[in-house]
Parts: sequence; structure tokens; C-alpha cells
Amino acid sequence: ATPFDPTNDPHRRYNPLLGEWVLVSPHRAKRPWQGQSEEPSNEQKPSYDPNCYLCAGNTRINGEINPDYTGTFVFENDFAALKKDTEDASESEGLFQFQTEQGCSRVICFSPDHSKTLPELTNHQRMQVVDCWKKQTADLGQQYQWVQVFENKGAMMGCSNPHPHGQVWAQQHLPSDPAKKLTQLGEYYSTYSRPLLLDYARQEVEKQERVVCQNNHWVVVVPYWAAWPFETLLLPLFDVQSLDSISDQQTESLAEIIGEITTRYDNLFETSFPYSMGWHSAPFDNQAHPEWTLHAHFFPPLLRSASVRKFMVGYEMMAEAQRDLTPEQAADRLKALPVQHYKKREN
Amino acid sequence: ATPFDPTNDPHRRYNPLLGEWVLVSPHRAKRPWQGQSEEPSNEQKPSYDPNCYLCAGNTRINGEINPDYTGTFVFENDFAALKKDTEDASESEGLFQFQTEQGCSRVICFSPDHSKTLPELTNHQRMQVVDCWKKQTADLGQQYQWVQVFENKGAMMGCSNPHPHGQVWAQQHLPSDPAKKLTQLGEYYSTYSRPLLLDYARQEVEKQERVVCQNNHWVVVVPYWAAWPFETLLLPLFDVQSLDSISDQQTESLAEIIGEITTRYDNLFETSFPYSMGWHSAPFDNQAHPEWTLHAHFFPPLLRSASVRKFMVGYEMMAEAQRDLTPEQAADRLKALPVQHYKKREN
Ligand SMILES: O=P(O)(O)O[C@H]1O[C@H](CO)[C@@H](O)[C@H](O)[C@H]1O
Ligand SMILES: O=P(O)(O)O[C@H]1O[C@H](CO)[C@@H](O)[C@H](O)[C@H]1O
Repeated sequence: ATPFDPTNDPHRRYNPLLGEWVLVSPHRAKRPWQGQSEEPSNEQKPSYDPNCYLCAGNTRINGEINPDYTGTFVFENDFAALKKDTEDASESEGLFQFQTEQGCSRVICFSPDHSKTLPELTNHQRMQVVDCWKKQTADLGQQYQWVQVFENKGAMMGCSNPHPHGQVWAQQHLPSDPAKKLTQLGEYYSTYSRPLLLDYARQEVEKQERVVCQNNHWVVVVPYWAAWPFETLLLPLFDVQSLDSISDQQTESLAEIIGEITTRYDNLFETSFPYSMGWHSAPFDNQAHPEWTLHAHFFPPLLRSASVRKFMVGYEMMAEAQRDLTPEQAADRLKALPVQHYKKREN
Repeated sequence: ATPFDPTNDPHRRYNPLLGEWVLVSPHRAKRPWQGQSEEPSNEQKPSYDPNCYLCAGNTRINGEINPDYTGTFVFENDFAALKKDTEDASESEGLFQFQTEQGCSRVICFSPDHSKTLPELTNHQRMQVVDCWKKQTADLGQQYQWVQVFENKGAMMGCSNPHPHGQVWAQQHLPSDPAKKLTQLGEYYSTYSRPLLLDYARQEVEKQERVVCQNNHWVVVVPYWAAWPFETLLLPLFDVQSLDSISDQQTESLAEIIGEITTRYDNLFETSFPYSMGWHSAPFDNQAHPEWTLHAHFFPPLLRSASVRKFMVGYEMMAEAQRDLTPEQAADRLKALPVQHYKKREN
């Protein structure tokens, strides 16, 4: 028998954030693909689209007119998944348990420029986005236990409008995934008296096996337990629980590193790289959360090219997540890319 | 304030199988959809396709020639995610935990007829499929702790070949989702001394609010905690832990109810309805599992039409699953459909 080779042999890795395992099958990347291919989005969009309901000055579906905004612009989702005034009711016994949920969903336009995604904005403009996330987090955290800032980018990720925008949803109860994290992070903290993710960030910076980029305050890694092919985790190098408590300097360098990772993503297949990204600040439950470290996930679906994605289906839905290349291989590829956006390259 | 109305107001439902919550936002179904639409697959396929590597008599990528099979046909996946001979290695401390995995992946062709999916086969042919699942489960259960029988149907679900087929993957360790179920089912059993899913099936049959179809031995419901729009759960009405221990009569009626639910699915949008489905038999760990009930999940992505799917992105990836209609509404729609396949209807 040949000795175990992690770059070639099937193995499982443990995700300590969720307490779940991921199956890694590196040799699977070699199989030919005859399945569905996606439409890559490479057309040049105009800076203003008269039919876009997110562009400045245009009318939304409910008849409201967007202001002539110049930085970010936030409004309540016209078809919100969460509402603030739902009457309380619940059933917590037996097999038919439910609870009503109060909350709020807002849309966050990143820029009036219809044609520019996060990596294409100036760093000053990206700082406005981060500042807006901070403000929304602070604002909604006063009323709700969980504030979920996120962005669905690209049609492949269910985004129905190419105008650069994200969302923030807030809800009264702690959602399932954050609840798992709270347990996992709490257990680690009660053993080691240090936050898990800060320990993890330090060890990754030391090892340099999965680091894609880093600066004075932040680091981006393909986590050891990544499920999506080019999944990354954005971590602070300092102790912080929530997006609304980072300093101006940390905001500036955060905008920079977001610019860098999203540029690397776009450069990977020379396409506007689809993903869902989101921020996890500690729950707003009026308790201290020394176990928690603010972090962001990027979950991008592409695997082989601008048009061939990973499908999380069948085995992944029934058993556990499975990936077709190692996180180290993914990190190496992202790390090797230029930091200048491919659209700006002269040739 | 108006009283809570579950058909209109946001609420969360508890999934006792996984110990997770689902956000239900019924009013969301009213929003207009401007996002990605999928290519529905409505072309009539030939019964034999010379370019299909699953058709009888054709050559596969590794040079092997498929036999002239008449019922089902099973072979080892040419690009298996799991291999039987991986050398043992593991690290179970700290933040970088892994374990090697031994296992096996096989492809199961349902029929030599390239053009026919499960609902279009005769019941006798579907019984051959169920018998094959039983045999594979018994065979692989002797060597591996977990045997995952599943089918990815349709290009939307990552299926790379339209020839009717499923897969069986087996692995040494218990995967993440089955491990959660084992805990949840065990806790219920230790409290009530009855299997959770059998109790659940009985209560659903009594209520008749979410039952889509049933026969002497089996029932299909849209579970109270369904995440996918038209997700269903297929349950036995008798105590059984594993697919390989159902009788010939139960096999026959299982083939019938699979024919019925997949026909209803196809009839919903008059398209070959994509889904991932899979069987959960109890773990093969040489222990009795009185807490476990054999069951199958169907996870179909379509939401509004043959071309508009639900995207489990952003909020769903970061926080928790969210659905846009109630399980009762989904069950009513499936129940109201004819049981004759739309392709067979005369008009
Ligand atoms: O094995 P296939 O059909 O080529 O591949 C499909 O099913 C697998 C098991 O669910 C998934 O891991 C793949 O992402 C999917 O494309
Ligand atoms: O709110 P949107 O962008 O219309 O909708 C998109 O994001 C939501 C939140 O992740 C998802 O629930 C929807 O399935 C998706 O299509």
C-alpha cells in the first residue's frame, strides 16, 4: 500500500466552526465534465441603466423613486422575507414546533454606477460600503439578535439585478448556523480562554499554506475545511466581535483586502466571479462574546472555468459536503494571480 | 395588530431530524422574478443514444464496454470520490483535524432505455430498481458504516448524463448529516421509546394536511419543516430500519408510490422534474437501531415554473434555510395533480 497523500487520496476534514466534516476527493478534479454549463457574464454594462430599479433616480416596483444617491443607498426590501410587526405565537412541544419571527430586510446599493462591482470600485468607494455595513449592523443590532449582512453576486447565485448591491436581514432569533457557531466557539473558549478564530488566523499566518492575501489588520485564507472549491474566510488579526466596532484605519484596510480578494476572484477565470458572501458579527443579545471573532465567508460556486460550477447535490445534500480539489491547491491558484483587475490590464 | 396567520406571516419551523430551523416567508412567493431562468428539458430523447456512455453495448471512458443489460446495471464509478484502499492516517487534535476515508462509489443504471425516467418505467421495472438498491445496500453495508443510495436528476442538479441512473456511495465514517440524525433520533427514542419518524408518519396520516400520497405500506409528505419548495419525505408505515430488509410486497408498493410521487412532480410544471433524492437506512455499525426509521428525501429545486428555481444562497448559506411558500401550500398543489403522467395524456 502507498502511504497517504493528501493531495491525491480521499479524506475528511473537520470544520470546527460548525462541528461538521467535509469529504475531500482531490483526484475527482480529473474527471471530464459533460454536465450543465453556465452563461458567464462578460458583457460590459452601462454606468446607468434606465430599466434598473436600483439606479439613482429610477422608480421601484412599489412606485417609490430612488434618490440621486452618490455613495451607498439603503432601502427596505419591497418583498421582505422578514417583517417587524408579526404577532407572537409559538408551539415548542412535539414534532410540529414553530415560532413567529420578527425582523427586517433591506437592500444596500454599493454605488450609483450600475457597471461596477466591488473590485472595480475605488478604495474610497469600498470604504463607504464597509461604513454602510457598520452602520446597518449597529442600527439593527439595537433591535434584533442577529444581523446578517450579505451579498449574492451573479445570476448563478440567485441575484436578480446586476447593479452592485447586497442585503442586510435581521431577525429576533439566532438562526441555525450562527447558533451552531456560538456553541462551537463557546466550547473552544471555555477550554483555551482564547477565541478559536483568532488562534486559527495566527496559525494560518504562520503556516502560509492557505493564505491568499493579508495586510496589517486582516487575512484571507482558503479555510482548511473549505467546502466550496474557492471558498475563503476573511479574518481579523486583532480581537474584535462585531463589524460596528472596527476603527477607521481597520475599515480602510478592510476595504483594501476586499478589493484584493474580489480582484483575484475575477482574475481566476477572467469573469465577474459569482459568490455569496456574508458577515458574522457576534449575536446582539446584550452579553459579552469574548469567544466570538468577527469574520466573513465567501462561497463561490465556480470550479473549473467561468462556465462550469460545482454542484452541491445528491451526496452533499444527503450525507456531507464534498470537494474536488484540496484547499491548499485552491489557495495556491488564487495566490498566484495578479492583483491588478483583468479588465484594467493593457494589452 | 392582526393575529398570526401561518399562510402569510414569517415564522420558523423546527426540523427535529437535523435539530435545525427553517424560516418560512409565505408572502415572498408574490414578488416578481427577474433573475436567472433555467433551460427546461422537454426534448424527446431516443431510447438508445450511440454517444451515451451508460447505454447498453456502448464503451465507457476507461475503455470498458457496457453489457447488453436488460434491467438495472451497476458499475464502479470511473472517477470515484471514494476509494477502498486509502491508507489510514489521521489528526484529531487542534484546529487542523483530518481522517482518511475508505469507501466506494458505484453508478446504477435504472434501465437500458435512454429515454425513460423513474415515473415513465413500468412498475415491474421500478421494482428492479428498488431491488437493486436493496442489494447494493446489503452488499456495501457489510463493509462500510454508511451506504448512501441517491439520484441526481436533471442538469440543474449537476447530473451530467440524461440516461436514467443513480449512484451509491459508501464510506467508513458516518457522514455529518446522518450523524446529526442519529443523535436526534436517539434522543427522541430514549424519551418516548418509539421511533420519531414512525410517530411522525402516523400523525401526518391522521392530520392529512401535508400528505401527498399514501398506500398500504408507505406515505409521502411535504414535511412540516421542508426547506426546498416541493421537498418531500417518503416514510414507511411500518417499523423498518434499512432498505435491505423490506419484503417483496413492500418493494412492490414502494415502486408504486415512487412512480406516483415522481409522476406528480413531472405533472406540476409539465417538465421532467429535477431533484436529488436519497435513502437513509440506519448505519451499518453492528448495533441495533430501534430509534431509526428507513426514509427517503426528495429535494427538488424548482419554485415557480419549469424554468425558475429556488436559490439557496446568501441568507440560506450564512444563516438558515428560507422558503417562499408554506409546506401545506406545496402539498395541496402536488395533491391536486393527476396521477397519470402528462406525456401519456391524450389530447
Ligand atoms: O458524480 P457526478 O454525477 O458526475 O457528479 C454530481 O454528483 C456528485 C454527488 O452528488 C456531486 O459531488 C457532483 O458535484 C455532481 O456534479
Ligand atoms: O432577495 P433576492 O435577491 O431577490 O433573492 C435571493 O436572495 C435571497 C436571500 O439569500 C434568497 O432567499 C433567494 O432565493 C435569492 O433568489
